[in-house]
Amino acid sequence: MEAAKGLVKHVLLARFKEDVTPEKLEELIQGYANLVSLIEPMKAFHWGEDVSMENAHQGFTHVFESTFESVEGIAKYVAHPAHVEFANRFLAALEKFIIIDYKPTVVNP
Amino acid sequence: MEAAKGLVKHVLLARFKEDVTPEKLEELIQGYANLVSLIEPMKAFHWGEDVSMENAHQGFTHVFESTFESVEGIAKYVAHPAHVEFANRFLAALEKFIIIDYKPTVVNP
Repeated sequence: MEAAKGLVKHVLLARFKEDVTPEKLEELIQGYANLVSLIEPMKAFHWGEDVSMENAHQGFTHVFESTFESVEGIAKYVAHPAHVEFANRFLAALEKFIIIDYKPTVVNP
Repeated sequence: MEAAKGLVKHVLLARFKEDVTPEKLEELIQGYANLVSLIEPMKAFHWGEDVSMENAHQGFTHVFESTFESVEGIAKYVAHPAHVEFANRFLAALEKFIIIDYKPTVVNP
């Protein structure tokens, strides 16, 4: 088993509060995506709505996945003023969330 | 915002039971990875342990991410005998889990 060199994924599962409008949601997603151009260690951002059929998503409706070159890069991101400002707005719109980071590892056959 | 063409990520967050040994864990991860060669719609598999520092992982300790070409591909995977057999063994070793699927989407600036 070997980890992709240095790459770390930062995954946030979210469920938004009932009163978050589609317009507000789009603004928040755009704001999240904009962090890529503001915070150097953040290398990529993808998101998507839950499309699962197994009914094991436990009420989470959105996935936000960002990519960093290292765990240290995530620490810089978390402390960055642009992230702090955005996170305050974003977390206020969430009913619940989970954040988990991992180094994507391949299993050799 | 545009979704990567057809690509769907299948993400499982897990916490294993206390009595799962490192050897058992490695066997389960190897078994999960082996599904790529047994189930045609499953295109890739990565996993990793939680390395987050924000203390928002809510007790989940592992991420398993597999890639499919479509939502229909995930349905075939879920129903595949090799998956059913493995899932019974895997889920029995878990204290808790979440499964969420999403189409990774990029936000245009």
